[in-house]
Amino acid sequence: MLALIAGQGRLPGLLAAAMEDSGRAFRVAELEGFPAEGLGGRPTLRFRLEHLGTLLGRLLDEGAREVCLAGAIRRPVIDMSEVDAATGPLVPRIAEALRAGDDGALRAVVAIFEEAGLRVVGAGDIAPGLLMPEGVPTRAQPDARHEGDAQRAAAVLAALAPLDVGQGCVVSGGQVLAIEALPGTDWMLASLAAGHDGPKGGLLMKAPKAGQDRRFDLPAIGVDTVRGAAAAGLDGIVIEAGGVLALNREAILAEADSRGLFLWVRP
Amino acid sequence: MLALIAGQGRLPGLLAAAMEDSGRAFRVAELEGFPAEGLGGRPTLRFRLEHLGTLLGRLLDEGAREVCLAGAIRRPVIDMSEVDAATGPLVPRIAEALRAGDDGALRAVVAIFEEAGLRVVGAGDIAPGLLMPEGVPTRAQPDARHEGDAQRAAAVLAALAPLDVGQGCVVSGGQVLAIEALPGTDWMLASLAAGHDGPKGGLLMKAPKAGQDRRFDLPAIGVDTVRGAAAAGLDGIVIEAGGVLALNREAILAEADSRGLFLWVRP
Repeated sequence: MLALIAGQGRLPGLLAAAMEDSGRAFRVAELEGFPAEGLGGRPTLRFRLEHLGTLLGRLLDEGAREVCLAGAIRRPVIDMSEVDAATGPLVPRIAEALRAGDDGALRAVVAIFEEAGLRVVGAGDIAPGLLMPEGVPTRAQPDARHEGDAQRAAAVLAALAPLDVGQGCVVSGGQVLAIEALPGTDWMLASLAAGHDGPKGGLLMKAPKAGQDRRFDLPAIGVDTVRGAAAAGLDGIVIEAGGVLALNREAILAEADSRGLFLWVRP
Repeated sequence: MLALIAGQGRLPGLLAAAMEDSGRAFRVAELEGFPAEGLGGRPTLRFRLEHLGTLLGRLLDEGAREVCLAGAIRRPVIDMSEVDAATGPLVPRIAEALRAGDDGALRAVVAIFEEAGLRVVGAGDIAPGLLMPEGVPTRAQPDARHEGDAQRAAAVLAALAPLDVGQGCVVSGGQVLAIEALPGTDWMLASLAAGHDGPKGGLLMKAPKAGQDRRFDLPAIGVDTVRGAAAAGLDGIVIEAGGVLALNREAILAEADSRGLFLWVRP
């Protein structure tokens, strides 16, 4: 049985649907305060981080052998007065990890699950369709200038990866217009859409951090990303093949085609 | 005689005033399309980039021995049909440099001046008062958390320096909220002020790029920077000692004190 630990957003619902389609047994545990979408009427365990140890025990009792962390869990807080007995021994590790940033928190939770004997699997393992094959499936196609912009964006993201910063970058005409930080992709695109004095056109690149554990917290794009890129005046979106989840492929491509943007799944 | 090549902003006016105070001979040449402030009624040569060669000849004829580039010259364009005879031989270098970004363009212009026998001097040489001494001259003082934020911001800027990106970074509680790109510091702060879901507080760090030629294009702060940082909800501003120009020290400190922000001139 697979335990699907659900954070915020659409990914948990997509993975639950993929599990159902495959006929494999699974159990959804939803973290309070980080509402997942698309779980519909499925029975879910709801848990608090303060009871993580108890949840872990229950999942093991129910026969869980694998676990998948899906959805965003940004800056959770721990109320020490609510920590239960089974979670107490885990608190120092979780607390230290939270101070290290979002990636650190996820790594700590993954390590705790692994030590309990669970195998951690990635969203791409459960729903391979979320990882798009290399190529440009849109009507609009990138040109030579976009190739240069993609190289520059990739270099910026690579430089920042050791600092656990940056899964997105906007480049136009060789100039870096924006670098994604904590407020995220949608915020970055909206800031650009509000107006700036840089060149028009260009692209958004999304890629996982170099060396990132691809079993959890892969960057994702959705229809909103396409709309945001269009509003920011960009020509297209580049995602790293195998490293970025496309949360609704058909809708993403339809949106990109209707707005004349390219989507480039780059090796 | 010193030739002051003026781009946009307040720096050219401040340097012209400093030259007048010192009694040394100087000549201002203002690039069209990049209006300098505070030059008042001083006689200035106005020039276009297409006539750079002619300007250079004239400055040499007038006895120029030194040159200082001051003020922002962002993304200038060259109209090939307007290039004059003396500038024609320089165009390939300028054009290639423009493609390399703002720093590249400045480096090319500096190299052209140097090859003509002019010594390039920095704004800090002309007006040492623009470089503030180490310390925290405001009433508000940074705490241990701000020290951590400053270290993280410095690490981000150092990672990006080889890519000719980033002279500013906002960090709060160890989280990177924003990284300055082409649209500049004021734009970055205004974007944060418009709202984001990251932590409050934190600081703006401004520093020159590692390895940057400190004779031109040093980052600068002014009263607007303090206002922008306050509007973005930050606790203070950190500038690298010797590497960031303070365009009006008294006004900056008064503004910071009135808004409760610290200004930290960090070694």
